[in-house]
Amino acid sequence: MADMKVRVSAQSENATKTIVKARNFEIVIDEPAELGGTDEGPNPVEYVLGAFAGCLNVMAHVVAKELNMTLRGVKIDVSGPLNPARLFGQSFEERAGFKEISVVLKPDTDADDATLEKWAKAIEDRCPVSDNLQHTTPVSVSIKK
Amino acid sequence: MADMKVRVSAQSENATKTIVKARNFEIVIDEPAELGGTDEGPNPVEYVLGAFAGCLNVMAHVVAKELNMTLRGVKIDVSGPLNPARLFGQSFEERAGFKEISVVLKPDTDADDATLEKWAKAIEDRCPVSDNLQHTTPVSVSIKK
Repeated sequence: MADMKVRVSAQSENATKTIVKARNFEIVIDEPAELGGTDEGPNPVEYVLGAFAGCLNVMAHVVAKELNMTLRGVKIDVSGPLNPARLFGQSFEERAGFKEISVVLKPDTDADDATLEKWAKAIEDRCPVSDNLQHTTPVSVSIKK
Repeated sequence: MADMKVRVSAQSENATKTIVKARNFEIVIDEPAELGGTDEGPNPVEYVLGAFAGCLNVMAHVVAKELNMTLRGVKIDVSGPLNPARLFGQSFEERAGFKEISVVLKPDTDADDATLEKWAKAIEDRCPVSDNLQHTTPVSVSIKK
């Protein structure tokens, strides 16, 4: 298969609120008041966990089909600890992002444990967001005036 | 500073559409028709790039303030190539996620090049989403029936 090029364009509305265009969709990002924001949308790290959940749902269904496993639906909880000290420039001892991420999958299914184990393993391996969170990805930043 | 615990809860609406709750917000995720979806929202990998842009905007303003740099606004383009072969189970030769991610920052500012260089470097280093994309993060997946 050929590579897909995925792209978004964003515009700051203020110091915390960002309007992102992805194709014909608009994503509103902000920070809660306690992080200095105007609280008009989820914040960036909530969107990362949400994107991960959305990706896991797609994979959950793709893999269930391959395994002939009936999947009537799935609930997905995603969480992780993050220390904002580096973001605010108060300390550079800890990393800026999530230290770890926990996922709990709650499938509505009659599949047995062995099948579910196989299912979860394939989901984790083949989900693009899971890959980008678990492994390194080169990022290049350039400035255009 | 103490760690923050960030969490979201998601429910599949169908094989591609996911409704995510983040605090009092709802995030709608789907896939476009060409990826088998019902196209009712951006897809997971678009949300990842959008979250990255939102995080860069917050950091752009935090760091500009520290540098006494006037920042009237910033446009942010984020893009990357991704091969969906692994997701669809057609080939396991390539990684599932973005191979690389490019960011173009277009600040509305009169700052000189040296200041802008310092600004961009600090943004990249201190943005939580940048950290989680560029470096490894442990992910644990469990199943609850």
